[in-house]
Amino acid sequence: MKYINFEEASDTVSDEIYMKEALKEAHKALEQGEVPIGAVIVSNGRIIGRGHNLTERLNDVTAHAEMQAFTAAANYVGGKYLHDCTLYVTIEPCVMCAGAAYWTQITRIVFGARDEKRGFSNLGRANVLHPKTTLMSGVLEAECAELITSFFRNKRIK
Amino acid sequence: MKYINFEEASDTVSDEIYMKEALKEAHKALEQGEVPIGAVIVSNGRIIGRGHNLTERLNDVTAHAEMQAFTAAANYVGGKYLHDCTLYVTIEPCVMCAGAAYWTQITRIVFGARDEKRGFSNLGRANVLHPKTTLMSGVLEAECAELITSFFRNKRIK
Repeated sequence: MKYINFEEASDTVSDEIYMKEALKEAHKALEQGEVPIGAVIVSNGRIIGRGHNLTERLNDVTAHAEMQAFTAAANYVGGKYLHDCTLYVTIEPCVMCAGAAYWTQITRIVFGARDEKRGFSNLGRANVLHPKTTLMSGVLEAECAELITSFFRNKRIK
Repeated sequence: MKYINFEEASDTVSDEIYMKEALKEAHKALEQGEVPIGAVIVSNGRIIGRGHNLTERLNDVTAHAEMQAFTAAANYVGGKYLHDCTLYVTIEPCVMCAGAAYWTQITRIVFGARDEKRGFSNLGRANVLHPKTTLMSGVLEAECAELITSFFRNKRIK
């Protein structure tokens, strides 16, 4: 296996690498019967926070993947702002998570697939995210979407 | 002191009683140098969750009063939905907290003073709160507003 230096990798390549890490988190959620959404937060080529959805296990609607990743990353940096950080998340953040992202002033958000129903962008991006935050979508979109679509498909069959 | 049966008290009286409890939480935040916002969650006349802002102490933007109250209440009821519950919070919830309230399907939200800058209602109520949730504002408004205004006034003087 070829060693990849994250910082030298092109943006597209490194975005996919980190989204794969978010997908690993989503799979951890799936193994626990949770809606399979995962997230990582990256700063200077290093993953400083991870999270996967645990709302059922914890009986807590605030236990979204992104929220846990924000808390973990803030703990790592020893401060509440996530400047020079990127959030990678498999599914578009909901209003709660986008609202949390605002407070972190995170530099960049990259998500895989849209959440047509509860994605924050339904409210209009400008009013939710921090003006410093840039947004990118569609990284490993098909894989991120398929994971969640098949989860709900299987739930309906059972 | 006359004993007040919460369930028999008129709505206005009981709303003020619970908002005073939320104000007690806000004072706890103030004592720790935090932005003084407090919250309680009430179900059938009983306070089942409390929280005050701890974002500085925990270095965590997700540690808003409401978020902690949601988690505490969900823990109390043993489920993630807060049906037949009311959130009392001294200041209008931000987008993150309103987004969390959506997921809880909480029956009612009562807040004291508006947050003109970051209150969720800037985004339009209809799209943020759950259709089942009713909203009321202005309970002990002056007291709730004064607490936070004087906090920031003192911060500027120092």
